[in-house]
Amino acid sequence: MDLTHRQEQILEIVKEHGPITGEKIADELNLTRATLRPDLAILTMAGFLDARPRVGYFYTGKTGSELLTDKIKKLSVRDYHSVPVVVNDQANAYDAITTMFLEDVGTLFVVDQHGILVGVLSRKDLLRTSMGQQDLTEVPVHIIMTRLPKIKICQKDDLLIDASIKLIENQIDALPVVQESDKGLEVIGRLTKTNITKAFVELVKNEDV
Amino acid sequence: MDLTHRQEQILEIVKEHGPITGEKIADELNLTRATLRPDLAILTMAGFLDARPRVGYFYTGKTGSELLTDKIKKLSVRDYHSVPVVVNDQANAYDAITTMFLEDVGTLFVVDQHGILVGVLSRKDLLRTSMGQQDLTEVPVHIIMTRLPKIKICQKDDLLIDASIKLIENQIDALPVVQESDKGLEVIGRLTKTNITKAFVELVKNEDV
Repeated sequence: MDLTHRQEQILEIVKEHGPITGEKIADELNLTRATLRPDLAILTMAGFLDARPRVGYFYTGKTGSELLTDKIKKLSVRDYHSVPVVVNDQANAYDAITTMFLEDVGTLFVVDQHGILVGVLSRKDLLRTSMGQQDLTEVPVHIIMTRLPKIKICQKDDLLIDASIKLIENQIDALPVVQESDKGLEVIGRLTKTNITKAFVELVKNEDV
Repeated sequence: MDLTHRQEQILEIVKEHGPITGEKIADELNLTRATLRPDLAILTMAGFLDARPRVGYFYTGKTGSELLTDKIKKLSVRDYHSVPVVVNDQANAYDAITTMFLEDVGTLFVVDQHGILVGVLSRKDLLRTSMGQQDLTEVPVHIIMTRLPKIKICQKDDLLIDASIKLIENQIDALPVVQESDKGLEVIGRLTKTNITKAFVELVKNEDV
């Protein structure tokens, strides 16, 4: 929303002198309290100012763009991740590529016999391997995977925005969604750039319902 | 922003009877015009209502979530795409995989001798090919690529949200950004789910500046 010049002035005064009463703000601007009432109501409703009885108005520290993105900041991984696709750490590269095509995913998680995360295999890892001249059934996945502790992970209660930053900063396509157990990290989901792209689309699409 | 019960009531009245004067809205609610003034000001400021002198208030048709996502709807492909990585249609699968690793991209665009788009090669296409037993230098890219008119494309003035929907609905990782020329479609960019994920992150990050 666009603020008027007077509303901007009010924000400046409250930023500098808050908490401050409506009366004092009116004095500063040489206006009556009644004239200011709608502006103060708007600024409070929109979340720029907060008011406490017998104390006055204070600045919430939120900018217009912050209020706009509050919605995005509340989205969490649990509402957007996909099901994980895993292969056993005893599998070979040929099995892994077959699983990748059958399940139509770009990233596989490698687990031990207890279902605990031990590695991650990307389409890129498998493409590199398959270019070599060796027999793919003779290449164990554990020698070509990325392994803990180098794997980036997330949890279902993490914010979607934090997981997105992890994907971008580490230049990876997917994060395993994990939960801690006695034996290590159990894989309970897969969060990909596709999930983030869907979330982006839904931000706009939801309103058409 | 959250609306009060009274503000919701005003919206309902204006939706049904608009354009309607402030006086008449006050009558409907058995309140004075003065009491309603802050609410009408808030609803107008926030974009829910619009007011025309001597006509009255009318409903803009915007919901809170619409106002929230107006910002997203203005983003365009031109501000988010990456540079395209291309291979010639005379290249072979081995060249293509090498280019993919050197440039670290997941999608290559195939162009003819005039730089005109003729096909798209994904990491998946190349992984499938490399699993076969044949010599990769003997496989021309034009037999494994997706070709026009099956290729989904976008232009630099397209909305980012529309391009995102295309990526999701067609289950692809990248769109070529093209511009029409006498000879066909020139490739001028590459729009990927990474670009969309970055846009999503920037929506929130920009405000911290």
